[in-house]
Amino acid sequence: MSSKIEEQVKRFYELVKKIKSYNEAINVMYWDLRTGAPKNGVEGRSEVIGMLSSEVFQMKTSSVMEQLLNQLSKHEEELDQITQKSVHLLKKELYRDKKIPKDKYQEYVVLVSNAESVWEEAKKKNDFSLFKPYLEKIVKFNQEFIELWGYEGNKYNALLDQYEPGMTVEQLDPIFKDLKDALVPLIQKVAKAAPVDTSFLKKEYDPHQQKELCQFILRKMGYDFEAGRLDETVHPFQITLNRGDARVTTKFEKNDLTTALFGTMHEGGHAQYEQNISKDLEKTPLAEGSSMGIHESQSRFWENMIGRNSLFWDAYYEYLVSYFPEQLGNIPKEDFYRAVNEMKPSLIRTEADELTYNFHIMIRYEIEKGLINGTIKVEELPTIWKEKMQEYLGIVPNTDAEGVLQDVHWSGGMIGYFPTYALGNIYAAQFYHQLKLELPNFNELLQKGDLIPIKNWLDDKIHRFGKAKTPNELLKDVTHESLNAKYLIEYLTEKVKDIYQV
Amino acid sequence: MSSKIEEQVKRFYELVKKIKSYNEAINVMYWDLRTGAPKNGVEGRSEVIGMLSSEVFQMKTSSVMEQLLNQLSKHEEELDQITQKSVHLLKKELYRDKKIPKDKYQEYVVLVSNAESVWEEAKKKNDFSLFKPYLEKIVKFNQEFIELWGYEGNKYNALLDQYEPGMTVEQLDPIFKDLKDALVPLIQKVAKAAPVDTSFLKKEYDPHQQKELCQFILRKMGYDFEAGRLDETVHPFQITLNRGDARVTTKFEKNDLTTALFGTMHEGGHAQYEQNISKDLEKTPLAEGSSMGIHESQSRFWENMIGRNSLFWDAYYEYLVSYFPEQLGNIPKEDFYRAVNEMKPSLIRTEADELTYNFHIMIRYEIEKGLINGTIKVEELPTIWKEKMQEYLGIVPNTDAEGVLQDVHWSGGMIGYFPTYALGNIYAAQFYHQLKLELPNFNELLQKGDLIPIKNWLDDKIHRFGKAKTPNELLKDVTHESLNAKYLIEYLTEKVKDIYQV
Repeated sequence: MSSKIEEQVKRFYELVKKIKSYNEAINVMYWDLRTGAPKNGVEGRSEVIGMLSSEVFQMKTSSVMEQLLNQLSKHEEELDQITQKSVHLLKKELYRDKKIPKDKYQEYVVLVSNAESVWEEAKKKNDFSLFKPYLEKIVKFNQEFIELWGYEGNKYNALLDQYEPGMTVEQLDPIFKDLKDALVPLIQKVAKAAPVDTSFLKKEYDPHQQKELCQFILRKMGYDFEAGRLDETVHPFQITLNRGDARVTTKFEKNDLTTALFGTMHEGGHAQYEQNISKDLEKTPLAEGSSMGIHESQSRFWENMIGRNSLFWDAYYEYLVSYFPEQLGNIPKEDFYRAVNEMKPSLIRTEADELTYNFHIMIRYEIEKGLINGTIKVEELPTIWKEKMQEYLGIVPNTDAEGVLQDVHWSGGMIGYFPTYALGNIYAAQFYHQLKLELPNFNELLQKGDLIPIKNWLDDKIHRFGKAKTPNELLKDVTHESLNAKYLIEYLTEKVKDIYQV
Repeated sequence: MSSKIEEQVKRFYELVKKIKSYNEAINVMYWDLRTGAPKNGVEGRSEVIGMLSSEVFQMKTSSVMEQLLNQLSKHEEELDQITQKSVHLLKKELYRDKKIPKDKYQEYVVLVSNAESVWEEAKKKNDFSLFKPYLEKIVKFNQEFIELWGYEGNKYNALLDQYEPGMTVEQLDPIFKDLKDALVPLIQKVAKAAPVDTSFLKKEYDPHQQKELCQFILRKMGYDFEAGRLDETVHPFQITLNRGDARVTTKFEKNDLTTALFGTMHEGGHAQYEQNISKDLEKTPLAEGSSMGIHESQSRFWENMIGRNSLFWDAYYEYLVSYFPEQLGNIPKEDFYRAVNEMKPSLIRTEADELTYNFHIMIRYEIEKGLINGTIKVEELPTIWKEKMQEYLGIVPNTDAEGVLQDVHWSGGMIGYFPTYALGNIYAAQFYHQLKLELPNFNELLQKGDLIPIKNWLDDKIHRFGKAKTPNELLKDVTHESLNAKYLIEYLTEKVKDIYQV
């Protein structure tokens, strides 16, 4: 490497470090806001977060950054691979951001920031008409952005790519079709089967006990409490502050054991990913998950493939009962296992089971595609929502609050994000299949409760690479296959058989 | 105001806002580090704090700031009073900072950052020689800074002024002498009196119960939990993040009721000050305490004048016993009151009682003056420390760890800070005297446990003014007297009589 390039590489990483530092500050403040910051400080704190976020945006799109990226791109062959990929990533983001005129972007930021409060009110009042003009503007802005960015194939691809690099409508449509074709009959079978008793899950479960239990399970998953912590919040999330600090939050419901239990395993899966990204990537922009979908695959894997696995409860059910002898003392493990795997069409996405969840996503995906391509109008959404719910899940919400207004995403401008949830399920099933091939004693390990070899496999195959591999590369390298719904379909078919004997 | 000046005032407050935002981010991260951040994230977090702190330093000393301050100073008569004072304050800080060459300052920052770790080790190993070279350099730097800044009267005044604006050796020396002359005989009296039984304070006190009790007392003090929170930490502190978020931390000792109880009242006093600074000052640099000493007066007031007051326990002792019936059920209130007021020479400043505490400060003050003026050498400190402990308190530490190495301040370059602790006691006694004159039903209120009129008086006379009044102005306006030890001496004389009947 020439000394001039060396100097530029150094300056590049200094700038990256500065950006990462600001992001760390922003994330600490965000975490704090969501885990007990006092009410009267929220407004001021939000302003500070906004101010630092705009500093980050300025650094990322600054002429200094642009020049460095261009210079380094010109001498790509002199750069090590990690630096090459880092430059490529930030350049992509830079040109994406720069294509939008500053004024227009500013206008959009104000719009979505207001839209979120309006959405909240609309949901509370169950009045879609309040939110409608905002969503119309958000869709219009996104359509304009897509034209400015440019796109290949379907316009919606430009939005998808933000969250799932490389993903396209052309790739997703047939996969979602396969999934739909296979799962609709499953749902019908379940509907006819005898229902599962879940009443004992709704008894009173002491939150302190729940917390201890969640800490225990996180430890068993290999979550490192010296590099993270568990806190309570209203809408659980995982957040990474720096390489030594990947935090989990959860929600303890007094009358529901499963929210915290599986929610913690879910967020713990995200955190495990973050805790095990290779130290080599620490100073680079690659020290994060490959994509939203891959990230979600890790959380879904722990929540469902492990947490809702009969073998897992062979190992830990007795321990669970020791925490809650009154509530679970006379419930056999098998009944507990069936209860936590209840499958039943429901209105709210975040409460949906493994089987029906994917339909909640498909509905949103179809609506988003339609909105962006101009085949669906915002004003039609309440009607379309009900039609699709009827078509896919056979139930219809009585209110828009429980229907089209239930999720926050669109109000924040996040169109194109929902598919990553279903992709998470699909990836997870593909990885799970491969894991079982490569760890032939998987069943035995799980039944003993020894989760560490499972974690190590994930670390080795997925986590350590961070964003240095794209989702497609990762999938290919780990499973030797490309994206497909086959394994998720197999997995769910088997699960349905196991739980409902159909 | 001319439109040009108006524009500059606007720009000035924008810059102030930016600095305050960065400080908020820094303070949230600091709070997080001290209340449970995981071990592995600490190093990275400290770097981020360092980076943002140096950005703050750059903004405060930037040429933009300098030009704005100079322009506004030239048109002082056009500015409102708050802006005048804000400009004056930041200008003073700017010129102070600018007088130190950048390289020299950088060198000093590195020195004190290393010195703190070395001090820690020296204390742990009880080896002053490790710390000696660092302290020598720190003293030398401070001597150089003083020459660069300039000073009037004693050199040490330049350091004092950083923490207690306007305070001088010339003012302090006679006051500390009065204090010493009056308190030495008191200590001798107490030494001869029958000791107080404190054994029941060292029983086992459940930390969860302690926490609830502390929350209860904070509420009674008028602390607003919608604008703050209470958390556990190792070395308790109060920290303000923004106007709606002034936090308290405390430490729950399993075998000591008083640490958390009085520690929380102490930090709660600081927080109450912060929560009640006038909203008019929010956007200015004046939205903080008048000085370290005035701040300390508020914490000491609540900790001692209220918390260790017999009347306060008339109101709340029964309630306290209801938390700890086993530990305190057969202890009469009078015995409890005497126990929490035990006076006894001890080695560690932070554990000292109201009476002996001031001597710990005087010892440090005399040593600091000597170091800065060159009449004491660092190498002599272990010996001098023991001599002064013998002289003032009649006891001598066996180790330097329990002696000259006990406090962190010097390792961080904080020379000139200690006197503000004793000033806090002196101010508190002066305010307390005045409060009782102006609230003639004070005894009755306290005995009923109605603390709100007391809080309101403090808010009205002290808190709301923030830094818009200097310590001297505040003292004059509130008490119509200047700084004097008379009321502290009276207060302590009475307390000694009350507790020891001598």
